[in-house]
Amino acid sequence: MDAAALWQRYQDWLYYHEGLGLYLDISRMRFDDAFVATMQPKFEQAFKDMAALEGGAIANPDENRMVGHYWLRDPDLAPTPALKQEISEALDQLEAFAHKIHAGEICPPQSTKYTDILSIGIGGSALGPQFVAAALAPAAPPLTIHFFDNTDPDGFDRVFKELGDRLSSTLVIVITKSGGTPETRNGMIEAKKAFTDKGLDFARQAVAITMPGSKMDALARSEGWLATFPMFDWVGGRTSELSAVGLLDAALQGIDIRSMLAGAKEMDAATRLPQLKANPAALLALAWYFAGNGKGEKDMVVLPYKDSLLLFSRYLQQLVMESLGKETDLDGKTVYQGIAVYGNKGTTDQHAYVQQLREGVPNFFLTFIEVLSDRKGSSIEVEPGATAGDYLSGLLQGTRQALYENHRDSITVTIPEVSAKLVGALIALYERAVGLYGFLVHVNAYHQPGVEAGKKAAADILALQTQVLAALKPNGQLLSLETLAANIGASDKIEIIYKIVRHLSTNQRGVVLEGNPGEPASLKVGVQ
Amino acid sequence: MDAAALWQRYQDWLYYHEGLGLYLDISRMRFDDAFVATMQPKFEQAFKDMAALEGGAIANPDENRMVGHYWLRDPDLAPTPALKQEISEALDQLEAFAHKIHAGEICPPQSTKYTDILSIGIGGSALGPQFVAAALAPAAPPLTIHFFDNTDPDGFDRVFKELGDRLSSTLVIVITKSGGTPETRNGMIEAKKAFTDKGLDFARQAVAITMPGSKMDALARSEGWLATFPMFDWVGGRTSELSAVGLLDAALQGIDIRSMLAGAKEMDAATRLPQLKANPAALLALAWYFAGNGKGEKDMVVLPYKDSLLLFSRYLQQLVMESLGKETDLDGKTVYQGIAVYGNKGTTDQHAYVQQLREGVPNFFLTFIEVLSDRKGSSIEVEPGATAGDYLSGLLQGTRQALYENHRDSITVTIPEVSAKLVGALIALYERAVGLYGFLVHVNAYHQPGVEAGKKAAADILALQTQVLAALKPNGQLLSLETLAANIGASDKIEIIYKIVRHLSTNQRGVVLEGNPGEPASLKVGVQ
Repeated sequence: MDAAALWQRYQDWLYYHEGLGLYLDISRMRFDDAFVATMQPKFEQAFKDMAALEGGAIANPDENRMVGHYWLRDPDLAPTPALKQEISEALDQLEAFAHKIHAGEICPPQSTKYTDILSIGIGGSALGPQFVAAALAPAAPPLTIHFFDNTDPDGFDRVFKELGDRLSSTLVIVITKSGGTPETRNGMIEAKKAFTDKGLDFARQAVAITMPGSKMDALARSEGWLATFPMFDWVGGRTSELSAVGLLDAALQGIDIRSMLAGAKEMDAATRLPQLKANPAALLALAWYFAGNGKGEKDMVVLPYKDSLLLFSRYLQQLVMESLGKETDLDGKTVYQGIAVYGNKGTTDQHAYVQQLREGVPNFFLTFIEVLSDRKGSSIEVEPGATAGDYLSGLLQGTRQALYENHRDSITVTIPEVSAKLVGALIALYERAVGLYGFLVHVNAYHQPGVEAGKKAAADILALQTQVLAALKPNGQLLSLETLAANIGASDKIEIIYKIVRHLSTNQRGVVLEGNPGEPASLKVGVQ
Repeated sequence: MDAAALWQRYQDWLYYHEGLGLYLDISRMRFDDAFVATMQPKFEQAFKDMAALEGGAIANPDENRMVGHYWLRDPDLAPTPALKQEISEALDQLEAFAHKIHAGEICPPQSTKYTDILSIGIGGSALGPQFVAAALAPAAPPLTIHFFDNTDPDGFDRVFKELGDRLSSTLVIVITKSGGTPETRNGMIEAKKAFTDKGLDFARQAVAITMPGSKMDALARSEGWLATFPMFDWVGGRTSELSAVGLLDAALQGIDIRSMLAGAKEMDAATRLPQLKANPAALLALAWYFAGNGKGEKDMVVLPYKDSLLLFSRYLQQLVMESLGKETDLDGKTVYQGIAVYGNKGTTDQHAYVQQLREGVPNFFLTFIEVLSDRKGSSIEVEPGATAGDYLSGLLQGTRQALYENHRDSITVTIPEVSAKLVGALIALYERAVGLYGFLVHVNAYHQPGVEAGKKAAADILALQTQVLAALKPNGQLLSLETLAANIGASDKIEIIYKIVRHLSTNQRGVVLEGNPGEPASLKVGVQ
């Protein structure tokens, strides 16, 4: 295709949203009209399915749940007046709470104002808040945010050291839908201990975001926590950024959450249109389907050319892969679906792995995220007529062009600036694109059976650890791994038992391991 | 394979390094003896090639360069006494400089001590320092590090705001081999301006790390910068962490750089052994080759179960993809080589995209990085008999097992703790594995032609921008994009011209764009 034809293709496929100033360009994906024609009926069905979902149909059949994150941005669309009221009230309460924290009307027992947030959550309860904090938090926010997003003791200690004496003015926010996520529970227990060790009253500085009636909810109420905000049954973790999960952290950091919601609402309206070319989420889904043949045959590399959007690809990694990465489709057929997503930021990544993208294994397609505004205020020239921002822009355009010429396809999303409104819009755009793609490939995009299986596998190992510890007699004879495993009737789990005792012996848990570490069969284990 | 056979396979293939306490387990990659036998002769050749490289042969033929990063850790191996002395002296000088900064013997003009570092570099001059800072910097380091690793004006502004008044006690380190990397040059110019705006003398707070005789070297000398440390011609960017590039930042943050070097040296010795099963880097390369059929058919997902190792996968992304992602092999044959790498950290990622890894597209293999020590000191129990660290360990083991049972292969690297020595060893392990794999698939693992091409593409666009600006007459008639392009003889570049003027018009550069943004053909452009 020559330059003139490409320029025509660019204009033919360019999507522009006037209210948001957002552009979507899929002209550098090499689909043809015949492909679009074959996709039309699939999209017609997907639009219908999406309308049913928004209308309150059970869109997550395995879990028998409605899928309602769209209602958060436009409560008028909620299927019942009660639900509408619940959404609006929760938002008002959250805003009022953040206002009181900022004003010092709610203050910590030992200080006049809260200075820091410790946000405890994992997966959907961390990735959205982290992305939004990096994208939108001011350089000197009213409260500085820190995260526990794992069950790593070193990681906890690092955050405690960062907080230091400011623990006394730290607001702890525990985010867990059910209260049953062990990592979050562990983080909460470790935080409680840190508070107690410093003579602080945890409950008086703690807030829960959880489902009304959950284990977490009961705990927070019984201990008299500062506040509790609801997570709704019909909002999944990876689409919860615009619920209390994301909005409380954001509001406390001084981010304009009403603008985030407004941007998402505008994008929701745009992506509700049942016409392929008028609907940017449908255009994205079309491009993804084309790239990977509807089977995820190509990875999605996401490159925002803006430092503050660094975590967007990590956020999308969850949204896309957890939603679409499924073994079976809605009919129970084995499909091994999904799209792998990775990326950091441009132009930085051009000095890292873009070498492989340009020249190596052609197993991907790219998404460039372009931000038109370089900075607030003007820029100096770094050479006659050119600014640092011109370089950023030039490097994006040059890379897009060179990759295309080397038969690497790309999508470009262009936004005028990184604002609360546009971040809300980006979130909504990708949520809808994932939803539509899920319908196209006929998977349940709203459950995560593999995550549950992972929790189960870990629980089994911890149960085995309990058995191992019970079987070892203090100061008794050292046992071989084989004997130990046989003694607890778990000879088929000898390798896991070995891993358990190796870990325990490294961590002052009274377990002794003797022998040659390079030859596990030589090891003998006991307890002090 | 039943549990007993798997346990036997585990023991048969387990690699253990006694000095480092490091384990490598490739038993969960499903290769068989026949595969290993076919690889033996390839490895014999790769070991010979590697020995030649270490002996000073030209291992980067395109650039006619020796590849000597191994000498940095063991200067005795350098091919000439002069080189040996150069390496040792550079290290001594760097350490002495860091010591003087810590002691306040070298202090900023307006303050008694340096408090912060602004490290300006991109690609290999940023990823290593960022990884090591996250992994090893103490919570309250003697100097706090900040990075410019892009040419994003908003990103610069964010760092300036973070530094605030401490700019007067900030040591700027500009890292660029040639001085010709535009992003680094732009960052330096923006930093200089920020210093000047605050009445500070940039040169008296600036240090250069560059090749002796480079443009950067000349500039630093002519302006009388505080110090200059050498980058060696025979060290590539992505293997430069254990040169001044990584070590100056590290030493200034109070990280034990001699231990990093010692760990790398020990690993270098271990990975120099020309026997497959005795050489952990060869075992890694074997596993990678098996996974992707020597063609990168599977992505490498890297999951360190430790918060402080979060950036290891990003570091490896560059090391692996920039080294191996090549269009042609050493004979000029088109091969489209490489291995895609991504990942963040466990167990966190189990609540994100691990859903897809467990159930979805089977287009990857995993590398678990396990750290045996949970934390300094002991842990409270989060439930009877179990700590937060037991959960971290259990979640890793459970995931590894469940993925294997679902036919997803994995490698496990186990280290006793995240120490300077072990981080040095990990870097060396992967450097060597990449080198050996490069020989196995017969590519030049030490050049990056695609990165150069990217720079060239951007330069062309900036040259076009200059033409565009010259062609627009102040307060003259507005031109259509078509006319503007024709006027400068660039009708085939109309789309790029459109992007240029769209970007300029958003950034107070005097360019006016009128018309409907959604219909580029309707736009008219001029300058004020």
